[in-house]
Amino acid sequence: MPRFFVAGTNIGNGIAVITGTDANHAKVLRLKIGDEIIICDGEGTDHRCRITRMSADEVETEVCHSERSAAEPSVYVTVLAGYPKGERADFIVQKCVETGASEIVFFKCDRCVAKPDPKSIDKKLQRFNRIAEEAAKQSGRGIIPEVKYVDSYAEALDIAVKTELPLFMYETGDRITLREALEGTENIKTAAIITGPEGGFERYEADLAAKVGIKLCAMGPRIFRCETAPMAALTALMYASGNM
Amino acid sequence: MPRFFVAGTNIGNGIAVITGTDANHAKVLRLKIGDEIIICDGEGTDHRCRITRMSADEVETEVCHSERSAAEPSVYVTVLAGYPKGERADFIVQKCVETGASEIVFFKCDRCVAKPDPKSIDKKLQRFNRIAEEAAKQSGRGIIPEVKYVDSYAEALDIAVKTELPLFMYETGDRITLREALEGTENIKTAAIITGPEGGFERYEADLAAKVGIKLCAMGPRIFRCETAPMAALTALMYASGNM
Repeated sequence: MPRFFVAGTNIGNGIAVITGTDANHAKVLRLKIGDEIIICDGEGTDHRCRITRMSADEVETEVCHSERSAAEPSVYVTVLAGYPKGERADFIVQKCVETGASEIVFFKCDRCVAKPDPKSIDKKLQRFNRIAEEAAKQSGRGIIPEVKYVDSYAEALDIAVKTELPLFMYETGDRITLREALEGTENIKTAAIITGPEGGFERYEADLAAKVGIKLCAMGPRIFRCETAPMAALTALMYASGNM
Repeated sequence: MPRFFVAGTNIGNGIAVITGTDANHAKVLRLKIGDEIIICDGEGTDHRCRITRMSADEVETEVCHSERSAAEPSVYVTVLAGYPKGERADFIVQKCVETGASEIVFFKCDRCVAKPDPKSIDKKLQRFNRIAEEAAKQSGRGIIPEVKYVDSYAEALDIAVKTELPLFMYETGDRITLREALEGTENIKTAAIITGPEGGFERYEADLAAKVGIKLCAMGPRIFRCETAPMAALTALMYASGNM
């Protein structure tokens, strides 16, 4: 069934309204009066609706049934990725939303090749958030995960340590396996996955993460590309926490 | 350390020789006499070698140490994917090699949009196998997983049922969870993962798979794109079997 996200204010008194590009999209899908669609408030509630009226720029529906979105995982995972070059960031956003991330934060660290200025990152973030919305619709998510950028490695660590299970993917040195890190995580409510940019992390960056209580983890003997690592670690976490 | 794959015949009597484009690549990497590299026979053995001689089109090395490649998983997984359109197939090859697949087989089934003729598929397979080699080098694999195409859905099922654990990812109907399917798989030696093309499988295709003893599995409440599903299922299998 087609799936739309609308802001909470467009839903009320048993009526939900789609406007703007989403209304256009409804036309592209050749929807007509009487058809059923899912309208999601973007905060985890799905409304099953029937189309009652269509105009040039609005689709009005009556709400038949509302429920918590079944697609939202039991754990809120923040994916923190060293900001990579080019299309790799697009890929991370799309695949992590599909796999169940609740938030994606790109951060600057020592070996980042891409060092965007504030103006260019604003444009990029608009693009990333469009990709996130698209992926959320396509995969049936109940929220649209937000994509952010932080200009500071310390800030990224700070976001991670506020979760119950902050994990740092590292390819060398003293680490535990991802499996050890994820044992007994069925009931956790929040977690963070930190991965590096193309060139990986500096030793001091890993040391700092360990010092603030973040677990350094190995992802096995194969080396993942920087754009693959976030999704692979997230898939393992979803699997281990009973969300897959 | 730079990693090269050479045919078994180029290694013998304590000497390993790199030729052709790989020899060129050694120059691009600015390798010189005395440098150490890993030469892999593509069958799971890594040779640690020191460069002894470099000519226009050959790099000769002495073998210092040979060992089983630590990067090869304990389970030989065949990924069978309904042949998708465009770059999705490239993506499946690259990501599944990184994640530890031992073989990738694209197959034709009812809802495949792309229906290649024998000539075009030969060209495509050359391309896929180049992508597999590149991904194997980059991720530190001990083999280059082969990419194949079978023109028949029945043949794909036949490949799967020859493994110890054939799994069929299906988005509807009577299924077990991937977690149930993967429980207690630490000691399996072979497995197969079957995923559909863009439009998924026909009911009769799933029924046939179940009839020949393949487990129908759910990948959780979120819907994966056809190019993401193989890697996600493979990651779960690698994780559950202790290979990640």
